[in-house]
Formats: sequence, C-alpha cells, structure tokens
Amino acid sequence: MRAVDLIQKKRDGGVLTAKELTFLVDGYCDGGIPDYQMSAWAMAVLFRGMTPQETASLTLAMANSGDQVDLAPIAGIKVDKHSTGGVGDKTTLIIAPLVASVGVPVAKMSGRGLGHTGGTIDKLESIAGFQTELSREKFLEQVNEIGLSVIGQSGNLAPADKKLYALRDVTATVESIPLIASSVMSKKIAAGADAIVLDVKTGSGAFMKTVEDSEKLAQAMVEIGTQVGRQTAAVISDMDQPLGFAIGNALEVREAIETLRGRGPADLTELCLTLGAHMVVLGGHAENVAEAKELLRQQLNNGQALEKFKQFIAAQGGDATVAEDVTLLPQAAEQVEVKALAAGFVSAIDAEQLGIAAMLLGAGRATKEALIDYSVGIMIGKKVGDPVSEGETLVVLHTKAQDIAVEEVAAKIQSAYSITAEKPAERPLLLSVVTTEGTNRY
Amino acid sequence: MRAVDLIQKKRDGGVLTAKELTFLVDGYCDGGIPDYQMSAWAMAVLFRGMTPQETASLTLAMANSGDQVDLAPIAGIKVDKHSTGGVGDKTTLIIAPLVASVGVPVAKMSGRGLGHTGGTIDKLESIAGFQTELSREKFLEQVNEIGLSVIGQSGNLAPADKKLYALRDVTATVESIPLIASSVMSKKIAAGADAIVLDVKTGSGAFMKTVEDSEKLAQAMVEIGTQVGRQTAAVISDMDQPLGFAIGNALEVREAIETLRGRGPADLTELCLTLGAHMVVLGGHAENVAEAKELLRQQLNNGQALEKFKQFIAAQGGDATVAEDVTLLPQAAEQVEVKALAAGFVSAIDAEQLGIAAMLLGAGRATKEALIDYSVGIMIGKKVGDPVSEGETLVVLHTKAQDIAVEEVAAKIQSAYSITAEKPAERPLLLSVVTTEGTNRY
Repeated sequence: MRAVDLIQKKRDGGVLTAKELTFLVDGYCDGGIPDYQMSAWAMAVLFRGMTPQETASLTLAMANSGDQVDLAPIAGIKVDKHSTGGVGDKTTLIIAPLVASVGVPVAKMSGRGLGHTGGTIDKLESIAGFQTELSREKFLEQVNEIGLSVIGQSGNLAPADKKLYALRDVTATVESIPLIASSVMSKKIAAGADAIVLDVKTGSGAFMKTVEDSEKLAQAMVEIGTQVGRQTAAVISDMDQPLGFAIGNALEVREAIETLRGRGPADLTELCLTLGAHMVVLGGHAENVAEAKELLRQQLNNGQALEKFKQFIAAQGGDATVAEDVTLLPQAAEQVEVKALAAGFVSAIDAEQLGIAAMLLGAGRATKEALIDYSVGIMIGKKVGDPVSEGETLVVLHTKAQDIAVEEVAAKIQSAYSITAEKPAERPLLLSVVTTEGTNRY
Repeated sequence: MRAVDLIQKKRDGGVLTAKELTFLVDGYCDGGIPDYQMSAWAMAVLFRGMTPQETASLTLAMANSGDQVDLAPIAGIKVDKHSTGGVGDKTTLIIAPLVASVGVPVAKMSGRGLGHTGGTIDKLESIAGFQTELSREKFLEQVNEIGLSVIGQSGNLAPADKKLYALRDVTATVESIPLIASSVMSKKIAAGADAIVLDVKTGSGAFMKTVEDSEKLAQAMVEIGTQVGRQTAAVISDMDQPLGFAIGNALEVREAIETLRGRGPADLTELCLTLGAHMVVLGGHAENVAEAKELLRQQLNNGQALEKFKQFIAAQGGDATVAEDVTLLPQAAEQVEVKALAAGFVSAIDAEQLGIAAMLLGAGRATKEALIDYSVGIMIGKKVGDPVSEGETLVVLHTKAQDIAVEEVAAKIQSAYSITAEKPAERPLLLSVVTTEGTNRY
C-alpha cells in the first residue's frame, strides 16, 4: 500500500477502506507518511467528502492511535458530554453533578483552556484545595462511590488527531465536516464513554455559522457514534452571545453554583437541562427527554444537584463550603463598570471579543505557561434584546487594579456591543436536536 | 501574507495574484513555506484550476527562481523546441541542424535521459569526441558562427519547478493541466528562448491519453507563452508506437543521419518537418507553415541539412565523418532477431515496454550513475498496420552478448506487440496544431 495511491483514490472520488485509512493514520503517527502527503489527502477529503463508513473508520483509527481509557470498572452506562466550545461556557460544572445526582455515572477528563478563558479544569481549580490530578484507580473509585469525578486530561489520547488537527490548521483543511466530526469523536471514543451527548454551538460566535452546517456536523458525529456502537445525540444551540452572565473562572463557578440552586440564568439553565436530559436518556435513567428534563429540574429545585456538587468538590479535596457561601471563592479587588456609549437595544454581543477582553484581564492564557488569575473576569449586565440608556452599565469588570489595560478592555467591550434603535427579533437558544432517530428543529 | 490564507483562497475558488503566487514560489524555494502547505495548495489547484493569468504568473515565478540564460548576444529570434517525451524520440538531432540550415539560430540546452533510453546529450555523446560541456561564451560564439549548438543543461534552471514537481509526484497532484503547463514552460523561459515550439505526444504511450486533453495542455502552454511574450506553438502527435525504427543511442543517431539525408522513416521525417516548419515561421524565416515545410524538405534533399549537422558535430569536437559513414558509430557485437509468435497484423506496440527493453539491453540508465552502452538497442522491423507471419522478425536486438537477459528482453518485446487478425484502422501521426490563432485538427 502506498500513501500516494490512497491520496489519488480519494482525489478521484473513490472510497477508502478501513484498512487503507488505518494505514494512513498509523503511518502518519509513526512518521512513515509525511505531513505533505497527509495535507494533500486532507485537501482531497475537503473536496470529495467521506462516506459515513469512511468517517467512522478514520475516527476509530485515530481513537486507536494512543491510549484508550477503560471505564469498564465503573458500573452503568457512562455518558460523556462534549461542547464545541464557547465563551462563558460553564455547562460541565453544572451538568456533571446534575446528571450524577440521578444516577448517571460521570467519569470525565477535561482540558485546560488556551486562549480566551480557562477550561473546566481551570475553573474547578479556582476552588481552594481542589485536586484535578487523580490516579486512574482513585478516579474510577470516586465515580463508583459518588457517581462523579472530573480530572485533567492525562495520557496520550488520540495523538493522530492532535497531529492531524495541527496540520489542518495551517493547510486550510479545517473546514471539512467529516474531518471535524472524526476529530471530536476520536477523542471521546478514546476517553472510554459508552454514550456521548454533543453540545454544538452555531452562529457568529461559533465555528459553524449556520444551523444547516451545524446540523450536518451533528449528523456526521451521531452517525460515527452509531457506526462504532457509542450512542450519540447532539443539541444545537445559538452562540450569538455568551451563555449566562459570567466570564472568568471563579465568576463562572459562582454562576454554576447559583444554577445548581435553581437560580441561574435562564439560557444557561435551559441548555444544561436539555443536554443533561439527553445524557439521562442515553444513560437509561428516563424514558424520554421531557421526562428526564422534568426529573433534572426537580434536582435543581430540591437541592440534590447542589448536594452532589458539594460531594464532588469534597471528594477531590476542595472546599465544599463555597457552595453555601460563594464569597469564599477568589474575588477581584476592583470592580469597574463599563458604560453604554449610546441608547437603544442590545442587538448583538461579539462573544469572542468578550472572551479576549476576559483574557486581557488575566482570566485566560495567551501561552501554555501563562498563569491564570481565577478572580478576574466580566459580569454581563445587558444581554441581547435588553434596552439600554446612554451611560448605563453594560458589564462590570472584575479586575486587580484600575489601570490603563482596564481602559483598553473597556473600549474593546464597548465595541463588542451593537446597540440599535429597534429591538432585535428574539432568537431562540435551542435550535435543533440530532439523534439516531433523525434531526428535529425546535 | 500567509501561505495558509492563499491555500484557502484557492480552495474556495479564488484567483491568486502574481504577487501572491510569487510569495508562494519564493517561500517554497527558500524553505519558509513547507512541503505540506505546497501540497495542499497543489491539491486545491488540481480541483479549482487556475486562470491563464494565474498560470502565467506561476510560470514566471518559477522561471525566476534560479538562473536565467541570456541569449541576447545571439542575433535573431532564438526558437527552442520541447518534446513531452517518447520512446525513440530523436527529433532534436534532426530538427536542430535542419532549422539552423535555413537561418534559425538554435542555442539548445538538453538533458540526459533517466529511465528508458538516453537523452539527446547521451545520443550525441555516442559520436566519438563530441563535447557536450562548453563554456557559456563558447556556446554563444558557436551559435553566432554556425547557427547551432547543443550542450548539456548546466546551472540551476527553475529550481522551484524541480522541487514542486518532486512534491507533486508523491502527493497525487501531477495531473493538473495548469501545473503541467507551467512546469514545462518555466524551464523553457529560464532557458532564454524568444519563441517555443512544443511537441506534445498523445495516446496510450504518452502522459496525455486523449487528443482533447493534449489540446488543453497545449492551449495552456501557448497561452502562457502569449502572456509572457514568448510566442509559442504546439503540434500534437500520436504516440501509440515508437517514432521511426531505432531505439538506442548510436542507432538513433544513425537514423537521424538517414533522415537528414532525406531517407528517413516517413513518420519521423513528417514530424520533424512539421515541428521544424513551426520553428522557421516563429523565427521569421518563412511566411507560413506550408512554405516553411517545403523549404525544409529541400534542405533534406539538397544536402544542406546534413552539411549543417556535420558543421555542428565538428564544432563540438566530434567525428563528423560519421555523417558519411554510419558504420563509424559504436556497433553492438550481436544482433538477435525477435520473432512473431502469431500471424496477423500488428495492431499496437507498447512503446513504454520497448523503452524498458532497450534499457535492459544497456541503452538507458536505471540510476543516475549508471553507464550507457551507446551501441545497444532495438531496430523495429514491424510497425502498426504491418502484416506479419508467424516466426517473422518483429525487431532486431543490438546487444553485447546473447545471454539469458536477451531472452527475457525478447519475451518482453513479444508481449509488447499486439497482433490481430484484422488490419487495424490507420491512425494519423499528426493530430492537431495549437497556435495563438487557435486549435486546428489535421
């Protein structure tokens, strides 16, 4: 078998076999197939696409390229969740204890954030004492005991995906739905879950700009799940503004705690209930999504979800009293109000610009080695559709000092807000659900 | 400017500017742009194509990537010829003295052969004493004196093309007409000619399998010539069997001498007259191709073409008496007849297999360092359309010794011949002419 022949086959519209795709992935991983052949193949895939069978074969080959987590010692159906990412996305902090509280085992490995804001692991580390590095044994034991553990990603999961993704990034071959789908799913499959719920963002602030493209991506991922025997469902939601009000590590933990108390922002609560409900159904703890959603809503209101959160924090060495008193979380010295420059209605918020603003305050990393300040961030005062008068507060910056950098950040936030005379049409948060049974618009 | 953005632009069907293409080519040459970006770009070009303007810009950028030969010291319009290659192609040996004899200056740099049979330089070196390495000054001086010089390619012509071609070869991105066209033309432009005549082969033995594809390639090359101010014409000819009867260095020189005497094979003579006529017209020594062809035919018959050949050989230190007595050329010790295994008509000859057979006899190089035996080769006895009886001689092998290798070669040749009961339909040699005025089928 020669890589050049496989590139040519794809170029000419052919279908590669599982054996051929494994040859490419393994060869690329061990260095026998060079970058310049993989990038030519990726470009050919971008033009020709891949069949569901090819996409699944590629995904499995990448999942098999490194370590594979064995969650068999955990009883029950392990359901993982993946988000395609977004500014102010603290859903894992809420959904993990929420679904664990009804018996869905959550054994989650999560990443640190590079870029705008911290990742789930960074957010959890803003709680004093919280440990994110557990041994494999301790991790599994904790899930069996309290139904939940979240640790930092360790080991070498899907290294082929990591290498291919870096190559695609510099060769204009990112925007291929089968390649994006196999990238996401290869990591989830290597991480060992039995079933997967995907949180696919759409809109100007997301990678997929239209519902149609997001549905195609979701369908490709659900199809891969079906092909490899991991039941998968995807919820497509709007990402035209940040989720909830908080951006920044401790601020987001605080908002997650409020949400677990049943007092969180409506959009965040709704998305968490929906994603969680799909996890509960796939985990076999409810008949249907409506029933599961109701069950989870009760858990928010009856304190069980927050109770699970406290157990979880305590089990990993963290100070669980933060759940009762959020002022124990790291707090920034200064609060600076950013004012509206004009009156009208908020018609759009550039989530990415807000994420960058939070990073500039110290909430995210510009480089891998940078240290995060857990206390800093942004609390959003006005969201899309809200009326605003000139000089009214748009957001409050939580920051160390009121210096020149803060003025720059304030200006960036002002320009991230679009204010118009007309009230914008209301946009629904939840757009579409994709399961093995098909695609349904809300 | 970033390479990834240019790849994306081409991927999305955009048109790259001359500046952008120069950035890619220069960056690739100096190592700033890696192979994996160029291969992704080449694959995008393969799918999206390039406009004539883009193709010309790429060609010029590659022509400018290394040395550029300055033929200005030679008076008159310098016309170069390029063949897309073929087994038994000795046209340069004939056309160069033929057109020089009517005043078209020929200052040609030629290559050695790698693969089946020797290149023009190898063929010339089968003449005792012939020198193919002249200084630039001596080369130009000789063209000004006798109108003709052929030397080995020296210097660093179009290194970007060399590097890109090697990459395309291993990334399934060879088969792009604008990339093939710019590869050929970049070398010709760097070699300094004012006008270019292209000998484009078509058919089973050639790179382009159909007349339509050959015409597209020819049109792309003529268009490049027009864009960069080098008048270009292309003649498309059939390559379903070797040209003439001789394959092998000294054997081909002998056939060239016969042709220069007006006694050569009909197909070879016709193609040389046609290509030569286009050179004469582009060189400004005749009004039209018909007139030029008649002029050249006279030069074959009146001895002027052969006289120019003798001047040329002598000027480069070779033994010009071979032109009068071809037995002075290297001759192989043994002649072995290869017989037909069946009766009927020759319906096809696999030219590539005959080329490989000649190489196995020692006429070509399997590696760059291999030595060529000038004396060995194949004399074809039966060509397509000829009747043949069982046991009749198909070809005569000229070889050093009658050993086992020769038996293998004979078997290869027998299987390269297709013999059918029906006489095959006659195929014309000349198929199409492409000039700035358009494409004309014969």
